[in-house]
Amino acid sequence: MAKVLCVLYDDPVDGYPDSYARHELPRIDHYPGGQTVPTPESIDFEPGQLLGSVSGELRLREYLERNGHELVVTSDKDGPDSVFERELVDADVVISQPFWPAYLTAERISKAKNLKLAITAGIGSDHVDLQAAIDNDLTVAEVTYSNSISVSEHTVMMILSLVRNYLPSHDVVRSGGWNIADCVSRSYDVEGMHVGSVAAGRIGAAVLRRLKPFDVHLHYFDRVRLPEEVERELGVTWHLTVEEMVAVCDVVTIHCPLHPETENMFDEALIGKMKRGSYIVNTARAKIVDRDAVVAALESGQLAGYAGDVWFPQPPPEDHPWRTMPHEGMTPHISGSSLSAQARYAAGTREILECFFEGRPIRDDYLIVQGGDLAGAGAHSYSRGKAE
Amino acid sequence: MAKVLCVLYDDPVDGYPDSYARHELPRIDHYPGGQTVPTPESIDFEPGQLLGSVSGELRLREYLERNGHELVVTSDKDGPDSVFERELVDADVVISQPFWPAYLTAERISKAKNLKLAITAGIGSDHVDLQAAIDNDLTVAEVTYSNSISVSEHTVMMILSLVRNYLPSHDVVRSGGWNIADCVSRSYDVEGMHVGSVAAGRIGAAVLRRLKPFDVHLHYFDRVRLPEEVERELGVTWHLTVEEMVAVCDVVTIHCPLHPETENMFDEALIGKMKRGSYIVNTARAKIVDRDAVVAALESGQLAGYAGDVWFPQPPPEDHPWRTMPHEGMTPHISGSSLSAQARYAAGTREILECFFEGRPIRDDYLIVQGGDLAGAGAHSYSRGKAE
Repeated sequence: MAKVLCVLYDDPVDGYPDSYARHELPRIDHYPGGQTVPTPESIDFEPGQLLGSVSGELRLREYLERNGHELVVTSDKDGPDSVFERELVDADVVISQPFWPAYLTAERISKAKNLKLAITAGIGSDHVDLQAAIDNDLTVAEVTYSNSISVSEHTVMMILSLVRNYLPSHDVVRSGGWNIADCVSRSYDVEGMHVGSVAAGRIGAAVLRRLKPFDVHLHYFDRVRLPEEVERELGVTWHLTVEEMVAVCDVVTIHCPLHPETENMFDEALIGKMKRGSYIVNTARAKIVDRDAVVAALESGQLAGYAGDVWFPQPPPEDHPWRTMPHEGMTPHISGSSLSAQARYAAGTREILECFFEGRPIRDDYLIVQGGDLAGAGAHSYSRGKAE
Repeated sequence: MAKVLCVLYDDPVDGYPDSYARHELPRIDHYPGGQTVPTPESIDFEPGQLLGSVSGELRLREYLERNGHELVVTSDKDGPDSVFERELVDADVVISQPFWPAYLTAERISKAKNLKLAITAGIGSDHVDLQAAIDNDLTVAEVTYSNSISVSEHTVMMILSLVRNYLPSHDVVRSGGWNIADCVSRSYDVEGMHVGSVAAGRIGAAVLRRLKPFDVHLHYFDRVRLPEEVERELGVTWHLTVEEMVAVCDVVTIHCPLHPETENMFDEALIGKMKRGSYIVNTARAKIVDRDAVVAALESGQLAGYAGDVWFPQPPPEDHPWRTMPHEGMTPHISGSSLSAQARYAAGTREILECFFEGRPIRDDYLIVQGGDLAGAGAHSYSRGKAE
């Protein structure tokens, strides 16, 4: 019998939705490149349901209890008296999400003597101290690709919205006005602009692919180069350094994981090397950029806009400056938690648990840490050590 | 000596911008398909400046006055005592914009004895009674293609924003909250959805092309069929009737001109034939949809969202229901008036005036009515008679 501790975000303010906006989700079998969507033996939900909140429980309770395991679900994750902190001491498995991260620090890992498996219901395991996980022989797994396309869509949406000045223009009509000049004096077409992606993994490449028919000039910086035929197909220019790339771009979008080499990459110095009036979109992790340097650049005009879906910490305090800085297009870490994505990462979490409890290997694509080292997808995407 | 009457939108509330968000515009020479951007003999502005407002004057004053003509610029366009109504009586040329339309009714045309040319600084001449223009031997011209790509970008932005629930999610963080579940309980991926375009002219085809890499199923309805190789390249399904198309679509985007055959096309009956929980994006003209049927469908859940850039009348009254209806993503007719588009339609307006005053033919692509009949682009896009 194992204890599974699952940290999820809170339910809707108005309660669990009685009815959803839509009746069905499109059926997706494969991701680009051929990897199949999750293949658990079964699921206990209808795709399209809200699964990622506390009441949703990723619909794991029936499966776990039927197999004699215990499930504890909470959203109370911060501070020494939190349910997470209390329940962690004898948990065998922790499930958390980037949207509402239960930070698995080295200290917490050292106290969780039974802990064997940490699952990210989504993508991105930077809320886990991977070095501590390596040192303590934990397995860390995430549902690779489950929401990559979701995030890539969110990114294109944010690029268009910043450049075209959507959000302020919407505010104008909602508040009863019609001053077109106010809206358009900061509105541009993306056509012809130079757009660069920091990293071209699953998400970055999907963003580049979606932007191609907008007749923009595409760029990327990555330590791993895309296959030559993909570079040619997308007409994308590779840059050896991020400095070289941002200097020629009008829009920069960030798609690398957070690890010691990427932390604080967009500091005052790098932002200062961008073209004046550039835009940054960050759907990766907040700590890849310097919080206050972004605010200062927006205020000075060095940046024309910043849209992001990621914050630190999460949730951010009410007075976090990104809530009120000018020319922002922020969302509360939702890009990878659309109902479409939830169906996939809930199924993937179930698949990982089935493998774990039945002693079958977890898909290599899902592994970040195993056997005391970076493994599987983690070996490509992360570095050892801990981002501070 | 001619009198040119130019109706433009008002200046920014805080005055003409001292500095713009960006220093330069990408240089675009051709539109897709090869048509060149406008080729006036010269222009008196820097691309990127605010040209479409009253103080911007499309930067026509120097050119016109140097050639002995008179330019009257106003935003006062409605009612019998408006500057537009007063100055129209002896105007030779009227310039107006879809964003801030000076409605050239049959009655007004009959009073404007000197009127020879009506120019739309932009695209879409439905604010002109084309039948009256035909009957009175006016020339009606617009700057075809000048902002088609702009509008196509706006459309893709609105589709993504509605489906992913962007605007309400942005409101959550801006107001200090972090309830992810509230945001995502109406957030979906567009991947795998069926998206249909009403008409596949310049804008509709550009939208379809931009959506293709999102791995959606594309559809269109048009009286003119796309070339077979374009249909194949986009993988787009043609429908004989709009009813047949909307019945299979999750998202419907409208890109036909307003004329008697398209007016009120999306009434309660047609919206009722859509899938429950569909989305409509309308960057074409407001009167193609029934105002109150849209509101009712959003309230009942038949529509999951409606985003649009077009209203009737323009400006709409403060209590226009589209300002406050649920699940809306409206903007105040700005999609075709980005600074990028303004540079092109200001240059195109200049080109048309140069042709007119120098007795050279206006590009066929720009003509809507000439010589007592629909002409040029107008012959493809409009029908005779008047949309009420």
